[in-house]
Amino acid sequence: MSPLPVRRRTRRIQVGSVAIGDGAPIVVQSMTNTDTRDWRATVAQIERLQAVGCELARVAVPDQEAVDQLARIKSHIQIPLIADIHFDHRLALAAIRAGVDGLRLNPGNIGGREQVKKVAAAAREHELPIRIGVNSGSVEKDLLALHGGHPTPRAMVESALRHVRLLEDENIDRIKISLKSSDVSNMVEAYRLLADQVDYPLHLGVTEAGTLVQAAIKSALGIGILLHQGIGDTLRVSITGDPTQEIPVAYGILRALGLRRRGVEIISCPTCGRTEIDLIRLVEQAEQRLRVVQTPLQVAIMGCVVNGPGEAREADVGIAGGRAGGILFRKDRKPQKVPEQQLLARLIGEIESITGESIGPVESEP
Amino acid sequence: MSPLPVRRRTRRIQVGSVAIGDGAPIVVQSMTNTDTRDWRATVAQIERLQAVGCELARVAVPDQEAVDQLARIKSHIQIPLIADIHFDHRLALAAIRAGVDGLRLNPGNIGGREQVKKVAAAAREHELPIRIGVNSGSVEKDLLALHGGHPTPRAMVESALRHVRLLEDENIDRIKISLKSSDVSNMVEAYRLLADQVDYPLHLGVTEAGTLVQAAIKSALGIGILLHQGIGDTLRVSITGDPTQEIPVAYGILRALGLRRRGVEIISCPTCGRTEIDLIRLVEQAEQRLRVVQTPLQVAIMGCVVNGPGEAREADVGIAGGRAGGILFRKDRKPQKVPEQQLLARLIGEIESITGESIGPVESEP
Repeated sequence: MSPLPVRRRTRRIQVGSVAIGDGAPIVVQSMTNTDTRDWRATVAQIERLQAVGCELARVAVPDQEAVDQLARIKSHIQIPLIADIHFDHRLALAAIRAGVDGLRLNPGNIGGREQVKKVAAAAREHELPIRIGVNSGSVEKDLLALHGGHPTPRAMVESALRHVRLLEDENIDRIKISLKSSDVSNMVEAYRLLADQVDYPLHLGVTEAGTLVQAAIKSALGIGILLHQGIGDTLRVSITGDPTQEIPVAYGILRALGLRRRGVEIISCPTCGRTEIDLIRLVEQAEQRLRVVQTPLQVAIMGCVVNGPGEAREADVGIAGGRAGGILFRKDRKPQKVPEQQLLARLIGEIESITGESIGPVESEP
Repeated sequence: MSPLPVRRRTRRIQVGSVAIGDGAPIVVQSMTNTDTRDWRATVAQIERLQAVGCELARVAVPDQEAVDQLARIKSHIQIPLIADIHFDHRLALAAIRAGVDGLRLNPGNIGGREQVKKVAAAAREHELPIRIGVNSGSVEKDLLALHGGHPTPRAMVESALRHVRLLEDENIDRIKISLKSSDVSNMVEAYRLLADQVDYPLHLGVTEAGTLVQAAIKSALGIGILLHQGIGDTLRVSITGDPTQEIPVAYGILRALGLRRRGVEIISCPTCGRTEIDLIRLVEQAEQRLRVVQTPLQVAIMGCVVNGPGEAREADVGIAGGRAGGILFRKDRKPQKVPEQQLLARLIGEIESITGESIGPVESEP
């Protein structure tokens, strides 16, 4: 693994028990898509997010009924809770009273200076961090006009700095900032510009990225290019679908860049005319069964002897297909021949022995 | 869309009708996973690859039976054909005689200087390009030993340069090079090192990247970080599964970076507690039906009025959900209110009118 460029220096903030910025591990977060007013459904979704590794949960707080559920939701979950608020400063005040661990709120859109003062006073009192979240769709009309009518990276940065100054004027410095766009190049450029101008931690994300595969592509590109340049302290992968899908994508990005490790990474070849075992099925079955493993582990499942053994030897454990079965590898051990029918079971057995974790049969999806 | 960094200057090679390097559009390629000896299955798979936008097809040529099918396969397909050969120079000679458009072959592993001379003579005579394809698993033992026993980026680059010199010694300069690894950071570093040392076009890929979603993440990261730095002239996304899945991922990467445009890009939000229509279903249905569209088009499907209208207005056409249905947007037209049940049909109708393409009912999968 090649070393990454030096991480950008930032201040550190605390969102409940979770540290963000200044060298802390890059934090994986998500947002519920339940109706926040339905506290049971919201808690259930946050529990599923927690179970796959989500470290911060954000919920939409569109009205008083939603804010009324926050204390109850908070009392039922283990990870910090962030309230996402637009327009109404009274919801922000009520969310703070309810005990949330952070706000996502743009101070420029809550009604005026007096409203900002009130929210800032409450946030200071509770030492609560605020995320300023600029989206390309939320850039103010006067800034759009100054930038040719489009939410350019510069327009997004200026919008963010305007919100930042409103908070700084109230002596708030527990700030993180996001500059999300559905345009990857614009998003990358916007964060790079901002990173040169402030030392607040940055929350990375590509917004409105579509369903699972397209969202994985766009998020890996936008978030990955920035992380590779040392920029970014927390991230959210946005997917149109069940938010629990977002977490493995987030860890996939962080793992591939050597920034976080969690669970099994499967190295498997695309198969070709040389493949003589049913590799695709084997990989899919292994992927299903290994999803429960928490220990970071690299598992190779290779179709042939041309690239297979070489790649598999770099992994912690692996198999490579041959003519009448395959070869089982494990770091620093002699490879063993195994018949095709036993390959998966033997691989699972080795992984149980390495990790000390018990790998049951396939779990049913929620 | 922000401009990308200047593209790296390279020589240009021709693979049949397809130009690679020196400012040519970045070429999307794939490799069949059929048994090449089964020419019908191989042709059928290449036809499906062509249909979704694949521009070069590579086939494994493990033996004489496979090489015997190349002329027939070539005569049935429209895109250039590349023969993937290891170890046996006679297969390379036979593939050239069969009329393939390029070879993927590492001259260091075909038996010796005499064998390289023969293949080089035939390649020169037919003006055929050769891709040197170093994988982290194929680095020679002496180079591994020099680099601490691991296929480090430097070891991979030295391995590639060794193969390059073997061809250059035979006056071959129609060369492209790949340096694939399953480790994204190593892969990025290896290509960057190589890009400083040669001016041959580079074929990008992350190898053994796993099944669809993980492969999309790792490929977007590795290929995307390099493309964003101006490096890369052709690419393959490797997926353990049907290779036709690779092509939309490849175009997704190129589109998100502003390098190629093809078909519909859907901008859709992750939904949240504010969403009041069944957005996920709507996006999935739209994605299915819009797959046939060739015209580059950005379509927004947004759940709410907070970010929706802003984002949707940047798209060519879009809808944003509200309380009793939604709003239909189209660039430079006044937004219209539409009941929820008619949203998809009205959106499809607008897209047919913009593109002039006919969008039928959902196609069945092959």
